Amino acid sequence: MSLVVVGTVAFDAIETPFGKTDKIVGGAASYIALAASYFNRNIHLVSVIGDDFPTDFLNLLKKEGVNLDGLEIKKGEKSFFWAGKYHNDLNSRDTLVTELNVLADFKPVVPEDAREADFLMLGNLAPAVQLSVIDQMKRRPKLIVLDTMNFWMDIAMDELKKVIAKVDVLTINDSEARQLSGEYSLVRAAQKILKMGPKALIIKKGEHGALLFNEEEVFFAPALPLEEVYDPTGAGDSFAGGFIGYLSKTEDISFENMKRAIIFGSAMASFTVERFGTERLIGLSQNQVDERIQEFIDLVQFDIILA
Amino acid sequence: MSLVVVGTVAFDAIETPFGKTDKIVGGAASYIALAASYFNRNIHLVSVIGDDFPTDFLNLLKKEGVNLDGLEIKKGEKSFFWAGKYHNDLNSRDTLVTELNVLADFKPVVPEDAREADFLMLGNLAPAVQLSVIDQMKRRPKLIVLDTMNFWMDIAMDELKKVIAKVDVLTINDSEARQLSGEYSLVRAAQKILKMGPKALIIKKGEHGALLFNEEEVFFAPALPLEEVYDPTGAGDSFAGGFIGYLSKTEDISFENMKRAIIFGSAMASFTVERFGTERLIGLSQNQVDERIQEFIDLVQFDIILA
Repeated sequence: MSLVVVGTVAFDAIETPFGKTDKIVGGAASYIALAASYFNRNIHLVSVIGDDFPTDFLNLLKKEGVNLDGLEIKKGEKSFFWAGKYHNDLNSRDTLVTELNVLADFKPVVPEDAREADFLMLGNLAPAVQLSVIDQMKRRPKLIVLDTMNFWMDIAMDELKKVIAKVDVLTINDSEARQLSGEYSLVRAAQKILKMGPKALIIKKGEHGALLFNEEEVFFAPALPLEEVYDPTGAGDSFAGGFIGYLSKTEDISFENMKRAIIFGSAMASFTVERFGTERLIGLSQNQVDERIQEFIDLVQFDIILA
Repeated sequence: MSLVVVGTVAFDAIETPFGKTDKIVGGAASYIALAASYFNRNIHLVSVIGDDFPTDFLNLLKKEGVNLDGLEIKKGEKSFFWAGKYHNDLNSRDTLVTELNVLADFKPVVPEDAREADFLMLGNLAPAVQLSVIDQMKRRPKLIVLDTMNFWMDIAMDELKKVIAKVDVLTINDSEARQLSGEYSLVRAAQKILKMGPKALIIKKGEHGALLFNEEEVFFAPALPLEEVYDPTGAGDSFAGGFIGYLSKTEDISFENMKRAIIFGSAMASFTVERFGTERLIGLSQNQVDERIQEFIDLVQFDIILA
């Protein structure tokens, strides 16, 4: 079932305790589309780049079932560029450079044949831009998933709340959940945020896993304990991509199926952080994905039978 | 099967963002014994108190199947006292007062009929004291579980390593695992620590759950997302008590059974933090414990069937 992915396709330069990259391919939509492509090969990407972007990567996306009709290429302009440096614990980072370039006046246009898609993934972008995408859909998608971040809470909270009111699933991290709700307890934060509109909330806790809430239930998905995390960039996007990729493949948006989708999302994120940028997310075999899922099953599986 | 619990029985004065207590009953062994008593009613407590300690609490322990023959009561002396204040996030705390009192020259004596116990839980104490208890056992217990903390790593690392070499399971938190191993990655930390002697390592991550490692496997137990954590004091001890209580009840020390034991330990810890001190750990019904376990099952249960 067709899936529309909106977000940045961009360049990143990343420094972690393990090394440093030059400009490499990044951007929320790149990670989301790549991760989702393991489950769904009917994806429409909506984004914008300059004419400085490598054709190789675009060809790779096409090969993986990602339709690029909604990818605007601006002649003579440069792609969005972000440079950042992670601290030693990899849980926090400093932004060194942000060059908006083509993103400065990005007005996404959803291609005609994507406007009836049943699944819509809004990657992290200005809330007004995310809203304009929802408005272009000809009918309400079966499921809209929204990713956002503290930056928009700081400078555009009112608009963000308008988007939040229109989506089915919101994904944010734990400190963003606290900021958005004003509650320290994540359980209370979730209760408040679910009153803002979404039917489900995913709180991402990085190396500590993720929580899925709806009004009645809560589910916890662990992160895989890894020997080394090389680069956390794109982990949340890969998570979101695996999540909506699996849901759009199975066409089942029940809470039970969202649990499975979160495990698949966590698996995709666990691959991403093992290398810099999108490297590890390219060319995984079905077998590699299955083995990773099996590791998640083994990690939390126990059998207690209560009398 | 009989279980020996060694550790402090003491007074605490606790301040959290939710309130403040006067001197209340605390101490590692109090929490361990109470939590374990839900699974095993053949427990020997080895500890020391002054004659200022409330008889009510001692009678309660006896009622719950805890034999106090190994509890030395020093006439005219005062019980160990600790006062602390938790920071707003409850993840860190300042010690305000430490009065060793009877603990200053504590020389535990394991009663004769407890020296052949099959299960030994060494609560947090000076490594030399823990070692002297192991030496008093007539035969090697089937399972020795050791809890310790960064304080002993700072001032008595050599002695601590001697104890670690003699136990089967070590329980420490994530920052202690990093300190003990010199590795940031918890997976690598576990590999190193398991080479120091223990067959299994439990890394406690507080509100983020706990990891169980042996040489080949890893298991993750979540913490229950709670609306409010009132007082984290004793959470790790309650966890250890539930863990060894369940193992000593079932007499099965396989990795599979340790997974179950960790869930029972996590459940006991989840009760403890809901009130100040030991309050919530007293008088729980079987039904309440079962319901809590069911919440843990529901929290992480998902069904993915790989082809």
